[in-house]
Amino acid sequence: MTQDIPTYADVAAAADRIKGHAHHTPVLTSRTIDAELGASVFFKCENLQRMGAFKFRGAFNALSCLSEAQKQAGVVTFSSGNHAQAIALSARILGVPATIIMPLDAPAAKVAATKGYGGNVITYDRYTEDREAIGTRLAEDNGLTLIPPYDHPHVIAGQGTAVKELIEETGPLDALFVPLGGGGLLSGSLLSARELSPECAVYGVEPEAGNDGQRSFRTGTIVHIETPKTIADGAQTQHLGQLTFPIIQHAATDILTASDPDLVDAMRFFASRMKIIVEPTGCLGLAAARMMNTELKSKRIGVLLSGGNVDMERFCTLLSA
Amino acid sequence: MTQDIPTYADVAAAADRIKGHAHHTPVLTSRTIDAELGASVFFKCENLQRMGAFKFRGAFNALSCLSEAQKQAGVVTFSSGNHAQAIALSARILGVPATIIMPLDAPAAKVAATKGYGGNVITYDRYTEDREAIGTRLAEDNGLTLIPPYDHPHVIAGQGTAVKELIEETGPLDALFVPLGGGGLLSGSLLSARELSPECAVYGVEPEAGNDGQRSFRTGTIVHIETPKTIADGAQTQHLGQLTFPIIQHAATDILTASDPDLVDAMRFFASRMKIIVEPTGCLGLAAARMMNTELKSKRIGVLLSGGNVDMERFCTLLSA
Repeated sequence: MTQDIPTYADVAAAADRIKGHAHHTPVLTSRTIDAELGASVFFKCENLQRMGAFKFRGAFNALSCLSEAQKQAGVVTFSSGNHAQAIALSARILGVPATIIMPLDAPAAKVAATKGYGGNVITYDRYTEDREAIGTRLAEDNGLTLIPPYDHPHVIAGQGTAVKELIEETGPLDALFVPLGGGGLLSGSLLSARELSPECAVYGVEPEAGNDGQRSFRTGTIVHIETPKTIADGAQTQHLGQLTFPIIQHAATDILTASDPDLVDAMRFFASRMKIIVEPTGCLGLAAARMMNTELKSKRIGVLLSGGNVDMERFCTLLSA
Repeated sequence: MTQDIPTYADVAAAADRIKGHAHHTPVLTSRTIDAELGASVFFKCENLQRMGAFKFRGAFNALSCLSEAQKQAGVVTFSSGNHAQAIALSARILGVPATIIMPLDAPAAKVAATKGYGGNVITYDRYTEDREAIGTRLAEDNGLTLIPPYDHPHVIAGQGTAVKELIEETGPLDALFVPLGGGGLLSGSLLSARELSPECAVYGVEPEAGNDGQRSFRTGTIVHIETPKTIADGAQTQHLGQLTFPIIQHAATDILTASDPDLVDAMRFFASRMKIIVEPTGCLGLAAARMMNTELKSKRIGVLLSGGNVDMERFCTLLSA
């Protein structure tokens, strides 16, 4: 496993590896949102990806790159949910034993799905314990390969395939909005956007409660924060990665934030008008685009919907609030 | 307006007329449902169609076929909801005044959307009044063209374009499941399936509470029933049409039924696993396919999801029951 910063060539190689395993997800449009923003908006629906999120792309790519000995020994990872399911499913497909470290308060649907895919789940308290330390110790003690959720070249390259597909379908874009947690999706997206649509403005979007990425981008050093309290459980990360930060720092246009109420509004729009379920984290892009409004007039805009894994009970509670 | 029974040539002509106006909706797959049925299942997602249902296809086609004088005078229709929105939206696009007769208890989202598209809404009591008589009188009194929701050759031809797109994308199928209310979608689907996949078994699926179509198909005469009480509000029709029945009688394989609880189970599956919102009527096809289970082993199956227009509040109430 190299720790070199990946390039677009790695994204292209990942696209070949995941072909036939990951869904080529649809790009949906809505005349309602086009009218609201005065723009042409293309939604890349990774909520319709296998296991319900883009994370399958990076996980499958990373596991595909392991040696036979590494595959036999097994993998370990830590994740708030979607990466956990992605590793568990990819591991099952490739016949690799997988141990997943998940927070105690992860959505029940994500824990159940991870176990359903055959993953061996170990829980921890995300507000007091360090998941990276737990993962590293487990890997060392048991000869497992650690596949972290975002700071890994093959994970980043795999995540980049979503925007590769998007731009290959839509042609060049003027602006692109991508949810930002640890930066795996955003950095991969940047590799693809810079190659396929070099003039495109690319925005990472974080929850308002956890704007470490924005502060890191603007100050030039990786800012660490406490685990933020937000409904966007897929973006409750404490800091960007050693690999994701330099890519973001070099290639992103800006990092924006969205409030929890704005995420709920976007979630309601997707459900009631577009008939799709998008989890709160997946709503970050649209929520931010709606706030920029006039700057986007007459532009061609990509919005990445990162996932759809939200308990139906929680979904209904959020929408009724 | 001809009252001849339409043919596949009419479907092909409709496909040309709606191009660029209707969405070419995606075909989604789910490994979970494939594993459950031991089959390859292709979901044609008309819930992701403009205004949330296949009805836009037939309405836009029918209005496109009007003469200039007819367009200027305006149209009238009666509908439990989706056809109403479809006529209102098509009329707005084509600059035609539209009057819509809707039941008092139609879902609030459907009434609001119809008014939002500029339709002039008139309500009636679906359990005591005759919507067809009201529509005919309004048409005669005001020189309007009546576009009924299903028993109309251009409506049928337009609805047939969904299965045309499906089979052009998937290739020939072994079985196809289509929701059945008045038979517009089923008869149009039959025109396409018989042309593009002649060996395909085609099943219409009705709510258990309103199996007039099944009884009509099996006895050879159009059976009239009271308005059935079912959550499948898009299939609360009282009888098949003079045009839809002969096509169904001649070309359908059988008519099946599904219970309300089975529709809720399917709706939950679509939301929690496939991340899409399907209204109860749109769940008829999957609910029936699940009951046939062993007969479908190793087959290639199409399932038409007719729409996604369900109030979020009602959706959440149904799922929590």
